[in-house]
Amino acid sequence: MLALSVNNHKLVTKEKSRPKLRQGWVLVRVRLTGICNTDIEILRGYHDFRGTPGHEFVGEVAEVHGVSERERARWVGRRVVGEINVACSAYGYRPVCTFCRRGLKTHCARRTVLGIVAHDGAFAEYLTLPLENLHVVPDSVSDEQAVFVEPLAAACEILDQIDIEKFREAAVLGDGKLAQLVARVLRTKLSRVVMYGKHEKKLALARLGGIKTKRVRGNATDLKRLNENYALVVEATGSPNGLIMAQHLTEPRGTLVLKSTFHGAAPVETWPIVVKELTVVGSRCGPFAKALALLRSGKVNPTPLITRTFPLAEAETAIQFAQKKGVMKVLLKP
Amino acid sequence: MLALSVNNHKLVTKEKSRPKLRQGWVLVRVRLTGICNTDIEILRGYHDFRGTPGHEFVGEVAEVHGVSERERARWVGRRVVGEINVACSAYGYRPVCTFCRRGLKTHCARRTVLGIVAHDGAFAEYLTLPLENLHVVPDSVSDEQAVFVEPLAAACEILDQIDIEKFREAAVLGDGKLAQLVARVLRTKLSRVVMYGKHEKKLALARLGGIKTKRVRGNATDLKRLNENYALVVEATGSPNGLIMAQHLTEPRGTLVLKSTFHGAAPVETWPIVVKELTVVGSRCGPFAKALALLRSGKVNPTPLITRTFPLAEAETAIQFAQKKGVMKVLLKP
Repeated sequence: MLALSVNNHKLVTKEKSRPKLRQGWVLVRVRLTGICNTDIEILRGYHDFRGTPGHEFVGEVAEVHGVSERERARWVGRRVVGEINVACSAYGYRPVCTFCRRGLKTHCARRTVLGIVAHDGAFAEYLTLPLENLHVVPDSVSDEQAVFVEPLAAACEILDQIDIEKFREAAVLGDGKLAQLVARVLRTKLSRVVMYGKHEKKLALARLGGIKTKRVRGNATDLKRLNENYALVVEATGSPNGLIMAQHLTEPRGTLVLKSTFHGAAPVETWPIVVKELTVVGSRCGPFAKALALLRSGKVNPTPLITRTFPLAEAETAIQFAQKKGVMKVLLKP
Repeated sequence: MLALSVNNHKLVTKEKSRPKLRQGWVLVRVRLTGICNTDIEILRGYHDFRGTPGHEFVGEVAEVHGVSERERARWVGRRVVGEINVACSAYGYRPVCTFCRRGLKTHCARRTVLGIVAHDGAFAEYLTLPLENLHVVPDSVSDEQAVFVEPLAAACEILDQIDIEKFREAAVLGDGKLAQLVARVLRTKLSRVVMYGKHEKKLALARLGGIKTKRVRGNATDLKRLNENYALVVEATGSPNGLIMAQHLTEPRGTLVLKSTFHGAAPVETWPIVVKELTVVGSRCGPFAKALALLRSGKVNPTPLITRTFPLAEAETAIQFAQKKGVMKVLLKP
């Protein structure tokens, strides 16, 4: 099968053999897969990943290993999305780790992560995941929508972590792909969501989703000068400066949700967290069922965020393109 | 009166005129005052403070301005400690700011802070504070104990911010003055509190308070290698590395209370906050009444933390001494 591989910060598209299946695992034929900023960070050395990146996908079950014929028949051919954290149970570890025992599978101490940690990902014709990680995609949700389930679930995670009913409004810092989804998810719960971003075209996209926007330059001094304050701020800039800027935007005793992951350290003055007594909540992977429900209900429509779809064979070009200014979601079609 | 002044990172002890009183304000004769790391940070440029530093004190009411004779008689001569944040109401601002309106006086948007922000502090024979900031010290609490009320209240703030009942144990990172108080306060609620610190002598002090201790070198790699994890970690190192180290010590979905303030930025990798979905809670000033109650009950005794008391006239020497290795609390006696 065709697959993209990263090794020592270098990308190459090549023929690989199809992955083998463990008991209770599924071979998924990838229908469509999305390029995320994390994939770009992986190229920069994030998590020291080697292999096939890619963790946003919609696919079709091609094979299930080690289940009854009936179970197999129930799954083969179904359109699915998949949770990316693979926990103890999927590898047969006994006893399971303390986090799996507490039901926190996304924090499994022994987890691999699709296309991010020690497990080949979705920039390929086929991928494997445990059956327990899959969610069936309803017919009314298109491939172009379903490919957003993973990042949309990450946006929904915020609603599981904070008591959104306590807030009247929120600010989202950043105007990129994840920021756009976060703002849309918050907008389903709050009457006022304001996006602070650098790019007029991206802010215009947000306005289509009923989000207020403010154009700012991407530095902390600028935001400090604005002197605007929110009880709830979500930092989704993907930039090392994000936390510093978000600290200025969050009012004393406010909640700052941190979404950006990137490779490397940024110089951060942490005293504002202490002096303003902020609560900084790190937020990662989220509930797929909620994301699918939002797509099915039509409350969130991410498809305007798609800039372009490339064939998988042009993955290297696509990843270059995804890093260009103004480009939003880039998809790969195997 | 004699007072210490800081100007352009330089210290000088000199004669100043006694401060004037506003309506409803109190002149306090300082009986004993403590040197805090924040005072050292102020010398390094923290908050760009000019004037008399010092915010930990116990004193005696010398004068009250603009109150009834009966009220005046009730106060003059009483032994007091004082909250350091001076809010809208004390300056007669109308309307009061949004934080004062919500009862968050320590976050008043117009606040001055004793010896830290635009208000002369306790390294002097006299200081002024609004009457509403004062707390009477019970006779059973000595000056040497009462001088710890301000930092002890800051340690108690943690109990107001998190639901301590949810936790079985906690780690305190740091073995300095504030870390020692934090560990003692947590120990009143938890059967197991472990202090991670660099200095054997300081750790020995903690053990006197029923606290377990682990000696570590002060770097993140060392802590990462230990691979020990807590659901609750308090960072009170006073060091720019503190947050990075604390991230390693906090388990996924855990709570990391941040106590250290210092001047300048430190390079911090923030992705562990996101990936581990940590909740980082900034924590500053706390409830004086709780701190006084802990001292009166004998549940916390901070006096073993006193290394030496200097006369106020030797304040410059005392501040040099306070920065020496192994030195804990240094007091000044006007």
